[in-house]
Amino acid sequence: MFITFEGIDFSGKSTQVELLKKYFDNLNKPNKIIREPGGTEISEIIRKILLDKAHIKMSDETEIFLFSASRAQLVKEVIKPFLEKGYFVISDRFHDSTTAYQGYGRGIPVELVNYVNKLAIGKIIPDITFFIDIPAEEAEKRKLKKMKKELDRIEVADLDFFKRVRNGYLKIASNEKRFKVIDGMLSIEEIHKQILKNITLLETKENL
Amino acid sequence: MFITFEGIDFSGKSTQVELLKKYFDNLNKPNKIIREPGGTEISEIIRKILLDKAHIKMSDETEIFLFSASRAQLVKEVIKPFLEKGYFVISDRFHDSTTAYQGYGRGIPVELVNYVNKLAIGKIIPDITFFIDIPAEEAEKRKLKKMKKELDRIEVADLDFFKRVRNGYLKIASNEKRFKVIDGMLSIEEIHKQILKNITLLETKENL
Repeated sequence: MFITFEGIDFSGKSTQVELLKKYFDNLNKPNKIIREPGGTEISEIIRKILLDKAHIKMSDETEIFLFSASRAQLVKEVIKPFLEKGYFVISDRFHDSTTAYQGYGRGIPVELVNYVNKLAIGKIIPDITFFIDIPAEEAEKRKLKKMKKELDRIEVADLDFFKRVRNGYLKIASNEKRFKVIDGMLSIEEIHKQILKNITLLETKENL
Repeated sequence: MFITFEGIDFSGKSTQVELLKKYFDNLNKPNKIIREPGGTEISEIIRKILLDKAHIKMSDETEIFLFSASRAQLVKEVIKPFLEKGYFVISDRFHDSTTAYQGYGRGIPVELVNYVNKLAIGKIIPDITFFIDIPAEEAEKRKLKKMKKELDRIEVADLDFFKRVRNGYLKIASNEKRFKVIDGMLSIEEIHKQILKNITLLETKENL
């Protein structure tokens, strides 16, 4: 089963990925956690280019191609082989991030983004996607709190950008049955519970 | 005017680019030569990833995205600004290489390649493209001759691959009026002459 987590920055995705991993580990279910961009030798080099604050002149198109390059390599080297071995593969961001950030956020035509995504992932579409939804203002608040620490290039974005990205996710949610919108303002434990409920439901369906 | 050169490896493109540059220099016509992939700080980092023989596991999709990332950045930082300043911009390879190599050569659906190209270059379509055409067997012969020196990752390809790429270029040529097919078996001087003739013709048309 291929599970992806989506959401605007500071939505708490990564915490949920960790909790889900622990859950699978406790049940001795083989699982593989991946993080985008990155996860292969080539993808990690690309990650460095993307997050380097010195590359402020990077065009929006360059950005989408680099994310897609990293993803295509991750699909080939990691996701596909692990799914074939029967693992639960859990990814912190996947192609929906590109639609939401580069499409709805940066304004690249969503139709073109869809073709790029198609080329990057082929048939490796997530079975279920958790969109941890928080308002843009909440993201901004959490960002400022974190500000004491350094922010990377991607996170230096304004409130309007977060709003566009969030609305983009909601549009995807209205078109994609695999998308589960989870209220990110709930407690960490409650969010985790809802995630488990959805996964169990899907597993039951697949075994029917 | 935006002029691109295309052809399979060892077709003699680069020699022609140099001759054309000299021609413009002698006439004091401002010109800018570029080489793909590369030409900006970000694009040169991407070039290194693409040509590194250690990255033999690179997927075809990763490859097309990296070429496109490098190109999108080059368009934004170099090609567009120089064209706006009235320069002759001359590129050794451009988006047609992606159609020919990654599309026809590696088998990525040409329809998807066209969308990727569209996203990478936007409205910056070459005014004229010289396809220096040599048979795949001739490329192989010239390759073996060069073999005493080291070949990079891209050039390590077989005869069938060169044939597919060449046929791809010929298909593009049949669809694109800007494509000029030049017989690459002619002498360097004769090829140069034909190139100049075509450029002069296009300049005259543009001034009418």
